Amino acid sequence: MARVVTFGEFMMRLTPPGYQRFEQATSFEIQFGGAEANVAAGLTRMGLSCDYVTKLPVHAIGQAAFNELRRYGIGTSKIVRGGERIGTYYMERGAAQRSSQVVYDRKYSAFSQALVEDFNWDTIFEDDTKYFVFTGISPALSDNQVEIAKKAAQKAKERGITVCCDVNYRSKLWDTQKAGKIMSELLPYVDICIINEEHAKLLFGIVPSHEFIDGDNIKEEGYIQICNQILEKFKVKTVAITIRRTISANDNYFSAMLYSNAQMAFSRRYRIPIVDRIGSGDAFAAGLIYSVDQRKSLLEAVEFATASAVLAHSIEGDFPLNSCEEIENLANGMQNGRTQR
Amino acid sequence: MARVVTFGEFMMRLTPPGYQRFEQATSFEIQFGGAEANVAAGLTRMGLSCDYVTKLPVHAIGQAAFNELRRYGIGTSKIVRGGERIGTYYMERGAAQRSSQVVYDRKYSAFSQALVEDFNWDTIFEDDTKYFVFTGISPALSDNQVEIAKKAAQKAKERGITVCCDVNYRSKLWDTQKAGKIMSELLPYVDICIINEEHAKLLFGIVPSHEFIDGDNIKEEGYIQICNQILEKFKVKTVAITIRRTISANDNYFSAMLYSNAQMAFSRRYRIPIVDRIGSGDAFAAGLIYSVDQRKSLLEAVEFATASAVLAHSIEGDFPLNSCEEIENLANGMQNGRTQR
Amino acid sequence: MARVVTFGEFMMRLTPPGYQRFEQATSFEIQFGGAEANVAAGLTRMGLSCDYVTKLPVHAIGQAAFNELRRYGIGTSKIVRGGERIGTYYMERGAAQRSSQVVYDRKYSAFSQALVEDFNWDTIFEDDTKYFVFTGISPALSDNQVEIAKKAAQKAKERGITVCCDVNYRSKLWDTQKAGKIMSELLPYVDICIINEEHAKLLFGIVPSHEFIDGDNIKEEGYIQICNQILEKFKVKTVAITIRRTISANDNYFSAMLYSNAQMAFSRRYRIPIVDRIGSGDAFAAGLIYSVDQRKSLLEAVEFATASAVLAHSIEGDFPLNSCEEIENLANGMQNGRTQR
Amino acid sequence: MARVVTFGEFMMRLTPPGYQRFEQATSFEIQFGGAEANVAAGLTRMGLSCDYVTKLPVHAIGQAAFNELRRYGIGTSKIVRGGERIGTYYMERGAAQRSSQVVYDRKYSAFSQALVEDFNWDTIFEDDTKYFVFTGISPALSDNQVEIAKKAAQKAKERGITVCCDVNYRSKLWDTQKAGKIMSELLPYVDICIINEEHAKLLFGIVPSHEFIDGDNIKEEGYIQICNQILEKFKVKTVAITIRRTISANDNYFSAMLYSNAQMAFSRRYRIPIVDRIGSGDAFAAGLIYSVDQRKSLLEAVEFATASAVLAHSIEGDFPLNSCEEIENLANGMQNGRTQR
Amino acid sequence: MARVVTFGEFMMRLTPPGYQRFEQATSFEIQFGGAEANVAAGLTRMGLSCDYVTKLPVHAIGQAAFNELRRYGIGTSKIVRGGERIGTYYMERGAAQRSSQVVYDRKYSAFSQALVEDFNWDTIFEDDTKYFVFTGISPALSDNQVEIAKKAAQKAKERGITVCCDVNYRSKLWDTQKAGKIMSELLPYVDICIINEEHAKLLFGIVPSHEFIDGDNIKEEGYIQICNQILEKFKVKTVAITIRRTISANDNYFSAMLYSNAQMAFSRRYRIPIVDRIGSGDAFAAGLIYSVDQRKSLLEAVEFATASAVLAHSIEGDFPLNSCEEIENLANGMQNGRTQR
Amino acid sequence: MARVVTFGEFMMRLTPPGYQRFEQATSFEIQFGGAEANVAAGLTRMGLSCDYVTKLPVHAIGQAAFNELRRYGIGTSKIVRGGERIGTYYMERGAAQRSSQVVYDRKYSAFSQALVEDFNWDTIFEDDTKYFVFTGISPALSDNQVEIAKKAAQKAKERGITVCCDVNYRSKLWDTQKAGKIMSELLPYVDICIINEEHAKLLFGIVPSHEFIDGDNIKEEGYIQICNQILEKFKVKTVAITIRRTISANDNYFSAMLYSNAQMAFSRRYRIPIVDRIGSGDAFAAGLIYSVDQRKSLLEAVEFATASAVLAHSIEGDFPLNSCEEIENLANGMQNGRTQR
Repeated sequence: MARVVTFGEFMMRLTPPGYQRFEQATSFEIQFGGAEANVAAGLTRMGLSCDYVTKLPVHAIGQAAFNELRRYGIGTSKIVRGGERIGTYYMERGAAQRSSQVVYDRKYSAFSQALVEDFNWDTIFEDDTKYFVFTGISPALSDNQVEIAKKAAQKAKERGITVCCDVNYRSKLWDTQKAGKIMSELLPYVDICIINEEHAKLLFGIVPSHEFIDGDNIKEEGYIQICNQILEKFKVKTVAITIRRTISANDNYFSAMLYSNAQMAFSRRYRIPIVDRIGSGDAFAAGLIYSVDQRKSLLEAVEFATASAVLAHSIEGDFPLNSCEEIENLANGMQNGRTQR
Repeated sequence: MARVVTFGEFMMRLTPPGYQRFEQATSFEIQFGGAEANVAAGLTRMGLSCDYVTKLPVHAIGQAAFNELRRYGIGTSKIVRGGERIGTYYMERGAAQRSSQVVYDRKYSAFSQALVEDFNWDTIFEDDTKYFVFTGISPALSDNQVEIAKKAAQKAKERGITVCCDVNYRSKLWDTQKAGKIMSELLPYVDICIINEEHAKLLFGIVPSHEFIDGDNIKEEGYIQICNQILEKFKVKTVAITIRRTISANDNYFSAMLYSNAQMAFSRRYRIPIVDRIGSGDAFAAGLIYSVDQRKSLLEAVEFATASAVLAHSIEGDFPLNSCEEIENLANGMQNGRTQR
Repeated sequence: MARVVTFGEFMMRLTPPGYQRFEQATSFEIQFGGAEANVAAGLTRMGLSCDYVTKLPVHAIGQAAFNELRRYGIGTSKIVRGGERIGTYYMERGAAQRSSQVVYDRKYSAFSQALVEDFNWDTIFEDDTKYFVFTGISPALSDNQVEIAKKAAQKAKERGITVCCDVNYRSKLWDTQKAGKIMSELLPYVDICIINEEHAKLLFGIVPSHEFIDGDNIKEEGYIQICNQILEKFKVKTVAITIRRTISANDNYFSAMLYSNAQMAFSRRYRIPIVDRIGSGDAFAAGLIYSVDQRKSLLEAVEFATASAVLAHSIEGDFPLNSCEEIENLANGMQNGRTQR
Repeated sequence: MARVVTFGEFMMRLTPPGYQRFEQATSFEIQFGGAEANVAAGLTRMGLSCDYVTKLPVHAIGQAAFNELRRYGIGTSKIVRGGERIGTYYMERGAAQRSSQVVYDRKYSAFSQALVEDFNWDTIFEDDTKYFVFTGISPALSDNQVEIAKKAAQKAKERGITVCCDVNYRSKLWDTQKAGKIMSELLPYVDICIINEEHAKLLFGIVPSHEFIDGDNIKEEGYIQICNQILEKFKVKTVAITIRRTISANDNYFSAMLYSNAQMAFSRRYRIPIVDRIGSGDAFAAGLIYSVDQRKSLLEAVEFATASAVLAHSIEGDFPLNSCEEIENLANGMQNGRTQR
Repeated sequence: MARVVTFGEFMMRLTPPGYQRFEQATSFEIQFGGAEANVAAGLTRMGLSCDYVTKLPVHAIGQAAFNELRRYGIGTSKIVRGGERIGTYYMERGAAQRSSQVVYDRKYSAFSQALVEDFNWDTIFEDDTKYFVFTGISPALSDNQVEIAKKAAQKAKERGITVCCDVNYRSKLWDTQKAGKIMSELLPYVDICIINEEHAKLLFGIVPSHEFIDGDNIKEEGYIQICNQILEKFKVKTVAITIRRTISANDNYFSAMLYSNAQMAFSRRYRIPIVDRIGSGDAFAAGLIYSVDQRKSLLEAVEFATASAVLAHSIEGDFPLNSCEEIENLANGMQNGRTQR
Repeated sequence: MARVVTFGEFMMRLTPPGYQRFEQATSFEIQFGGAEANVAAGLTRMGLSCDYVTKLPVHAIGQAAFNELRRYGIGTSKIVRGGERIGTYYMERGAAQRSSQVVYDRKYSAFSQALVEDFNWDTIFEDDTKYFVFTGISPALSDNQVEIAKKAAQKAKERGITVCCDVNYRSKLWDTQKAGKIMSELLPYVDICIINEEHAKLLFGIVPSHEFIDGDNIKEEGYIQICNQILEKFKVKTVAITIRRTISANDNYFSAMLYSNAQMAFSRRYRIPIVDRIGSGDAFAAGLIYSVDQRKSLLEAVEFATASAVLAHSIEGDFPLNSCEEIENLANGMQNGRTQR
């Protein structure tokens, strides 16, 4: 059972019930999540051994977050306890033509204000760590976090750990210029890079040639161009691009492509009536790392990772709580939504 | 900030949770609404200054209704307090092929039994009122309300206030013959008339020529004919027709047309996965009055009013709690339901 | 008002709220149901007089189940009280590409362990019983239940009662071989047999000719072949086949065909955004028996039974709580999901 | 199993969750009840056969009320269906020094507007009715209801049915003068009269002598005086007086006395931490009638009726859903609130 | 109708349902409150005209807070909009021997980081302001808030506005030394000072003589000594001391004393089964200011203010949502918790 | 950090909300617990390292139970997965004079049907186990469980592990005769025995002398006699007796005594307004083992264990989720239920 270390913020998410707007709510559902923790939850359900590295306050709200990681079998022994606040975000479910809204209240969080010395990467990466996962969200939080990410990625690289990074640009946290600069410094440590075409363009100016763009859509050749540019620019080994088209807040198309060793594979394209979108990209990352660990073929890998992402849309909350068997069945075309009885 | 006076009943709506039938319910969600109050809520969010004129009992249930208007910034200083009951309706959400059901319990309400002398329109319309909004629901409630509507409309007309009326025929409240007669006496005071083709036919016998009807659908020319007949018959300045096609209880098409000064504009047609239909027509009215006040072009106006109606379908409860910016974005084709983060 | 006796287990169903997975749930919604009780609920709403025959423990949970039958006017005077457990099942609502999950906890239930002598069929069938309904679920529960089903069916046959059986194969309860053997012994007592093409194949090896199969679909001629084989093999008078195609957990196509006296009728085909699938097949059975009792034509009968099934998808819980009028309207194409106000 | 007919309004009660005030509520819990129906619910649980006679609208809200009676095994075959509204009341739970509040919305209800000819008492009282129960609430609702009560009581008397009446004066429904006059006309038909000392004073001017009043409390001799005056004035056979002292909204003392054949018995006095007070007086009435039917001694009867009332304070909603065994245990001093496991 | 200006933070309070601990919660109830806003809510219900002055972010969570003030009729026209965060606190209800827990997350809030120039006191205090209310909580939040409080108090003083301050020391926000120093600078501007004996001791070293202390209790003479020292030290006109004894988390004794013009009055002492303690001290302040405005006698004033505080314990959430009539009744000994029907 | 192994069933508890009776419930709250797991939860919060040994099915309901143990940091690596059912019990909260009701549905559970060979005690007790905890509930479940308990206790004894047993007689699971016989065979392996006077009498015929019984109460000398007899009979080292007096379902007195080395200590006596009684005895056991491990004095130990039990009454659900600090404060008389802010 391969050991994975994931690193990032772990947040409390507060969501009004049903489709209530923030102004209507008289209660919030409490969930806990965070891009990298979601990856850890996904990988744990696939049978890998995951440690989550973050910083959480010692008070009862921080403890509740800590418990949630334990509940789903994610390793918590490397978590640093301290700081004042848990990063919080408010999520209003969109419906139909109305978008979901996120209000961040994560500034001054224990994680964003963590110090470089809070994390001892030699201890964290013990002998047997095989994968290290981080995303572009942490370095967006503070200068300290930029340093921490660099140090962690460097240490991982030195130890021969496979490094996976989901670029995950968040416009509410930093601007494209700073993000582009910082991520350009981090990606050279990365083996597996997950990105979408919009972020490739906004952060790195990477765009396909004119002839491969067809209105809102990019042709297969265009995606290959994007991958090639990322490979060349950052020397990553594998690039995954997730492709989402939003029909409405509850109705998306989703597919993905994977590029490695000059080979490329596209997944099927799914139409998804959405329960909860948050965490689906992270489920993709989990599915991808699992596929790599299982030495799946490029096509099998992109189908499995995509199926993992698709099923995550059906789960309330951030954690992608599907079983490996459900994902395999969908990837193999055997899951059709029939009641199992 | 233009001042608007809207007039009508303000009701308590009791709804079983989720898709429960009345016979299954062990609790009701409480919402408050009413066609004209919904218009006021919509206009208030667009930045206009709205006073709502109604009659509410002094007891705690009446006070809760009163508070809900205050909560969303609607002016309550002209509300008359008294009477025994608050008009109530029970709403069972339909799903799929099963229709939503409404059970009215509004008879003997404080509003329906209000007296003509309860409302002093000179005080209500103070110097600066620019728009007066009423609908065909109030005069359906009692003979007193017919008198009150006439007096209000007449006073508004005398003061040069722009009068807007949504015909809003309700078959559970009166028959087409009485409704046709009374509305024919009221519409001559009206500047902006909102109606649909079914009510135009049922109340006034206004139908397009045979050649402009295509099965269940009416061609553009047919809608122009309907508008022309309304204009001629009642001397209104502007006619808006809302066009809805019901696929299922949760799935409707919606569009609209607007006709004024011998010009006509059609909005885009939306397909809407519905959260809550109630109040969407009122959101259209709000969007239309706002557009008039902002001196939008005919096409911009019908697109804005339609976008306002479309977004109201995504809101639980009667009040159309969208922001002006959300509506503008949808009207401009920029809102696509993507999560904002 | 024709009297119907239905016989089967009555279970408690525990369902996490919304789309929560079992592992996320902190509460269960309680519903009660069971294939045959669902038929009884449906028939009672259509105006027939139904007695439900089952065995329930005397403790408060058993009493709550008993009360639920009373609540909807189902006759409870023939229910045997005793035993230790009420059959229970846990139901996790699926969404999108994720299937609903059922965890059965019905072993050792009072009903499954009932004795042959618990039920006095002469008393149960009193003089005026016109229909007897059972399904293939009860004999799957225990050997005792096989004996009980045989005795009941035999007694009913002797009295000239019309016997209706929904084959309802459940793979979690028995295997196809045993099910095929037992059902083959029971169906000769049956007048009206409801089945789908998958169970016909799995239990009895009944399949249409190669040329009438088109990929996943069976042509009309194929369905006729299936019916003819069932008719010949078991000498039933009427065969109904329900046809479901699952697009996703929330989105199914549903139609049905009916075959009797060498005549055949197909219903319209509906696309259904699903609220709760459980009990829809039972609503079909109720609609079919009602149609037989009302001497509807074959086409009217299949349309009514199908409309009954379709509307049951919109109801939370197992009981198909639609009115006869709603079903007639849908069967006649007059119900379109518009709000009734 | 003695047959009982109870007669009165059956209402929907809407209650904010927990201790919310009406102005805070966003949902209502739905319960159904009414003084006389509560008696029927209590008697049914004690094993008597009860028919409830009332009038309920045919719409779905009326049907839900009807179902609730069926659910608990109360006979519904004599219920008249028709009228527009179901009587409704809003109940705000008090706490500590804040009183519970009731807002009635029962005017114009189907029951209050029922006609004398709606009820055929000869059919209702069939051969075997042994007890008839009504209260002073129904005649408070309308002049029709006064006539109906008189006719019913008279018919019952003629047939030798034991008539039980709880005086139950409600100051929000009528004044003491009218109540006194009407109840004085009705009580001569009554065999068992339940009253408290406050109503005896307000309606009939019946007060104990000065020397038997000790501050807020009445001495035993005083209660005997009250009973004697009622016996003499109205020729009833048995008088029960319930004695409540309110410490706070959640904390009451409760006891009772019973007087018959010149004998008197006092129950123990209980201190009760209250869950829901509504219906506790009705539980007393049920316990009293059951005791009479079981030919309990005067002391046993008052202890059983009091225990029934005490336990009803622990039940959410109006119906006193205790078992006969629980009441007997408490009456016998064997119930002490220990967990049964 | 006298105009009151209250000034302070307005916070979101998140509370687990029932008696759940933070670690158990899967949802939070949302309430809004703050010591000074609670005073405003109380005064508004007593009929005074209150403006609340605070700073709230413009985002939807800030807007929801804003709406809550509007809902209860509190003036919002002087509220400054801006900043990043709304002050938040988490509240875990205690029960029995377990204390309620508060986790503050109010650092970096818009209010705590407000600038001196955000508030124009000349505009805020317009001509007719009669009372200004602030507490010792605001200056505990930041140095800016100390300056703001001083400026406000000074301006109020200059205008002859009656200034009321509840000392309200919060040990989680600052230490006693700093609090003592700052409050000593602020109290000289104050006319009405509310404090308890613990804070008098901790902040100002004010203690009664030895002979007036009896174990945990202070004798009347001791309270007079405390008042006299406060009067002398800060030249306030009126001192109110609230006296609470905690038996358990749900069970407190509460009384108060009032001292002015060398006269003193003690209220009755209440035992209170608590629903929600938060806001009860603020309800006392509201009751006191109302009493001053109504020129009640010292005894009437302390009884009214105490009754206001007592009833606030029965209200869920921070706002003391009692009516003036309920308070008067309790103060006059006429409220006894009996159901009003 | 001492290692503890606790062994027993882990059950799902289903509870109607609030004070609803089973017959009223439309939902169940889900909690997980079991006497021995509750001890483990308590000890884990006190900082000991606890492994829970049980058997749970692999399906999702079993997994949810497993997750709950992980969530609170209880070791799950020794849990056996398999079997069909999770033991279930239904719990109806009592109130006032109405007792809580438990309906067990634990027969045929995976745990009750576990085999002796399912548990390898040598592996389970690894080198460093210091305490082993079991109760009299497991051997009540099946003959297998008697064997398992014997084997475990014997193995523990051999390894010098301190064995703790709470006698915990459950009359719904076995009779006193069988319980007396089996427990007499098990107690000789036990070092610390927890019991109450009722079970000592029912199972072992151990009663104090006549002169030490005073009505319902036993004098101190009586308790000493009981302890002495247990010590002599079973050679245990320490006996703890918990003493509960039930005033009502929500109101109990609780205290305890501890006897060891011919010394005895009595705790204070608490009056407890109860939130949830279940698990309070287990919290006592946890507190006792912790005290032993901390080498507290006899008096400190009984005060700490009692405080742990008292606080557990304030926690919803079975697990005693208090902190060690809260317990110490209460034991030291410093916790008084005041809000911490």
